[in-house]
Amino acid sequence: MGIDRTKIRWNGWGWAAHKDDLGSREDIWRWLASELNMPALLATPSRPLEELSLPPCALSLEDRHGLTRVLGAEHLRDDAYERAFHTLGRSYHDLLRLRAGDLSLAPDAVVYPRATEEVLAVLAFAATHDIAVIPFGGGTSVVGGVSGVRGAFKKAITVDLSAMDRVIDIDTVSGTATVEAGIAGPALEKALEAKGVTLGHTPQSFEFSTLGGWIGHRGAGQGSNRYGRAEDWLVGIRLATPRGLLTTGDAPASAAGPQLKDIALGSEGVFGIITEATIRVRPRPEVSDYRGYLFRDFESGMAAIRMAMQEDVAATMLRLSDADETRFYRAYGKLGKAASLSQRLADFYLKMRHFDDRACAMIAGFEGHGPAPTAARKQFDAIARRHGALALGTRTGERWRQSRFLAPYLRDPMMDRGVGIDTLETAASWSKIGALYAATRAALETAVLQTVPREGAKGIVMCHISHSYTDGASLYFTYIFPRALDGEIAQWKAIKKAATDAVVANGGTVSHHHGIGEDHTPWIVQEKGTLGIDVLRAVKTALDPSGILNPGKLLPS
Amino acid sequence: MGIDRTKIRWNGWGWAAHKDDLGSREDIWRWLASELNMPALLATPSRPLEELSLPPCALSLEDRHGLTRVLGAEHLRDDAYERAFHTLGRSYHDLLRLRAGDLSLAPDAVVYPRATEEVLAVLAFAATHDIAVIPFGGGTSVVGGVSGVRGAFKKAITVDLSAMDRVIDIDTVSGTATVEAGIAGPALEKALEAKGVTLGHTPQSFEFSTLGGWIGHRGAGQGSNRYGRAEDWLVGIRLATPRGLLTTGDAPASAAGPQLKDIALGSEGVFGIITEATIRVRPRPEVSDYRGYLFRDFESGMAAIRMAMQEDVAATMLRLSDADETRFYRAYGKLGKAASLSQRLADFYLKMRHFDDRACAMIAGFEGHGPAPTAARKQFDAIARRHGALALGTRTGERWRQSRFLAPYLRDPMMDRGVGIDTLETAASWSKIGALYAATRAALETAVLQTVPREGAKGIVMCHISHSYTDGASLYFTYIFPRALDGEIAQWKAIKKAATDAVVANGGTVSHHHGIGEDHTPWIVQEKGTLGIDVLRAVKTALDPSGILNPGKLLPS
Repeated sequence: MGIDRTKIRWNGWGWAAHKDDLGSREDIWRWLASELNMPALLATPSRPLEELSLPPCALSLEDRHGLTRVLGAEHLRDDAYERAFHTLGRSYHDLLRLRAGDLSLAPDAVVYPRATEEVLAVLAFAATHDIAVIPFGGGTSVVGGVSGVRGAFKKAITVDLSAMDRVIDIDTVSGTATVEAGIAGPALEKALEAKGVTLGHTPQSFEFSTLGGWIGHRGAGQGSNRYGRAEDWLVGIRLATPRGLLTTGDAPASAAGPQLKDIALGSEGVFGIITEATIRVRPRPEVSDYRGYLFRDFESGMAAIRMAMQEDVAATMLRLSDADETRFYRAYGKLGKAASLSQRLADFYLKMRHFDDRACAMIAGFEGHGPAPTAARKQFDAIARRHGALALGTRTGERWRQSRFLAPYLRDPMMDRGVGIDTLETAASWSKIGALYAATRAALETAVLQTVPREGAKGIVMCHISHSYTDGASLYFTYIFPRALDGEIAQWKAIKKAATDAVVANGGTVSHHHGIGEDHTPWIVQEKGTLGIDVLRAVKTALDPSGILNPGKLLPS
Repeated sequence: MGIDRTKIRWNGWGWAAHKDDLGSREDIWRWLASELNMPALLATPSRPLEELSLPPCALSLEDRHGLTRVLGAEHLRDDAYERAFHTLGRSYHDLLRLRAGDLSLAPDAVVYPRATEEVLAVLAFAATHDIAVIPFGGGTSVVGGVSGVRGAFKKAITVDLSAMDRVIDIDTVSGTATVEAGIAGPALEKALEAKGVTLGHTPQSFEFSTLGGWIGHRGAGQGSNRYGRAEDWLVGIRLATPRGLLTTGDAPASAAGPQLKDIALGSEGVFGIITEATIRVRPRPEVSDYRGYLFRDFESGMAAIRMAMQEDVAATMLRLSDADETRFYRAYGKLGKAASLSQRLADFYLKMRHFDDRACAMIAGFEGHGPAPTAARKQFDAIARRHGALALGTRTGERWRQSRFLAPYLRDPMMDRGVGIDTLETAASWSKIGALYAATRAALETAVLQTVPREGAKGIVMCHISHSYTDGASLYFTYIFPRALDGEIAQWKAIKKAATDAVVANGGTVSHHHGIGEDHTPWIVQEKGTLGIDVLRAVKTALDPSGILNPGKLLPS
């Protein structure tokens, strides 16, 4: 039955059993303090669940009976762990609150339906009993997509779909699979692997996030250049709504009016709960070649990606770090290691070749069958060389691949040391991407400087291009800063606002693959226009007339 | 100013000046009569416009003044030609009525706005004055997309966008262009060619259909395997609605909620009028290689296409005719030509190689840069060989390419001879396509037999796969039949109903690229579900609360 929620951290990232030595690596913390220009990093531990109190459960006896009649008593849970675990998602803003022990948004109960019919019955019951319903995929939203906000409702339940993780059918003739939406990445890929196919959707949250969540927030995995975004691989859906089931067909393409699956993509659970999806799968790649390149600067790396995309080079991933990100991870990687002779020789060689502190690292991946991936890699090699890059070989690529899902584990030890870390991402056309990069970066740096707790302290702002298209690319910013411990949430809001204002003013979308959740609703009117918001509200009213579904997400209240 | 409407036939296909000798080729008509098992084909000329009378114009003086205030007097037209030209589209059903002189659906006037602001003003005026508005792209709809149906309204105007055909911007850095939606194919491609790029969207209606129409009916061009469908190349739109302008952004991808451009795709003018679009363009191909193959049967050809798609062979087009279509065009091509020695040798060779009357011809196209198209062609060669096919070389391909937009001209002379010809198209997953093909074909054959005007007469039903995907393909049926002259429309309806019922019952979509128009609305509830229709109606009400836009299209009344 899906991922056991007690095996995942309720107020941090990932497996409770995950172990690393980051917390005790004093060399790292001294280095990070100096990067942030702080004399030292204070211990800021999170509060244990045992100390915390939860709001009283607002469900009536009738509500509980009604729900357990649908689900069976064992599939409604309201113990402290379940309620705390489902209170918020995993954004920086969420973690600030969870670690401080703020469980005011805890749902009154968590239900675990096992079939579409049960989801429909829960929604029908909730609609007639004024209960807000928060759909919960893997709970990994980093934009407030699953927080227990209940809007005008006094009662709220979270619908956790992790028991709905069956693979219903794998059609190897059509190259499609029909799967329940509560399945998480590894279970899905394991089932597909048994038939020799893959979806290839690997967001950083892959281990915990679910098929329904990927569709609901219109996501993209790290290999989306090859495997596509959710909108590319989604064939059809079943969407359980308070007004009944909306089912779409499974034709590979259709001109029969607007496609209703498109309305579910990015709907973030405000129109209905995706219970099942038919998805395009493809043969598992025979070849999977990831390798590193070093470009002289961000511009030349970006130009190489643009050329590769516009010349149809079939890359799986082209991930270009800016100079600051390159420098940061290089310095981080060297910590605690004596510089080897080969490392010193490599450094010397780079200097000779005039690679300086503007140098930008890229990880490029090529997957596929037969000669195609090698041909694509050679094409990209030539483009990279033409743009002055140095090929670094496969070791860098393999290293990245082995740690591709580990980065989120870095956040918790930072949170334990008074350090804040958040990310934001956007996308724009190639014509706009340079200005968007510069403006967002500047906005982040300025906002961090304005909110640091101590004169002279500063942040680290870094960026990479993670996804690219013929007409543009995405930018993914990570920013690390000393926390203003007496006003952490205000600090986060100030930085977020400054950066997102810059994104919108420079032609970027407010999200390329994280979604809207609660965090981006202040900008949704600018993104969609008032008439666009009217359209989304009209769809909402058609499917969820009493407005019980995921209050406060996607649409401003 | 766009295509002069007086240069196009008001009751047939294409340029008024188009000349061919089909009408007088008695050998063709004798052959066709024998194929249809008819003793002879009767002359059934269309009625000339001079003989016909139009319904009186229902616009009041105030209406006319209001509209001409917005547009200038010269941009409102109501002469007989303009009204007749804009009465209907170019479906078989439309032609039956136009040729018989039925102009009862003529709009009261045709307006030619020159800017988005004028379209907005026309819509605002129409909404407050109870005037139905029919958006008119190129008028080439074959599913009743532009017919002058006015629903509950007593007055109707057609908005012809052909004066809005400016190319606003070609951004060669991003590989995008921003263009007014009234532009037709050749003008668009000419402007793009000047910058070395192409959209590559080439439906059979290419010469007359417009950018706005392609988006509005969610179309696909002949080269969509490479260039994509409208939903693939559309970046952003401006949609003029009675409630104002809806504008979307131009990010290459976004997770900022459902994308409103998706709602415009396939909306068929019932939500608003697309006035401008930003589209993805790509470098014009250096290489463009079209060639023929002959497969032993439809199954093996279909299997080759499936393998090519699932193994990422970068074909631009894989167009496979079934045995009947192959035989029909082969016989048609031989008419009036003495069999040459080389032709007889070729026939002999085919027989030796055991190609019989089940043989199926394919035209395959490969476009692109550098070695890629040749590599793709070689990959496909190998796949075709593995499936027992014979490579026919480039001559067949070039011949197809030269006549790629001419097929619709065959219809009018047939209509002059008591022959009916219509097409319908669908798509399904690979698992379903065999049964869908057989069932639709059988339904067409039976329905034609049941409606022929004469015992023993029969129809010709043929099919090709025109568009393919990793997970399925489209089927395009053409059916030719002796007309039941005393009940032509009833005959058409009976055939259409039988075939479309079979399509829907066998998991096909009701349209792959023609759209819904009026003709497919009887099946739209089956396609979308009642809840899905509620969603579309909700969008309609949000954007067009008084329901003036394109009554009777897309949504059943």
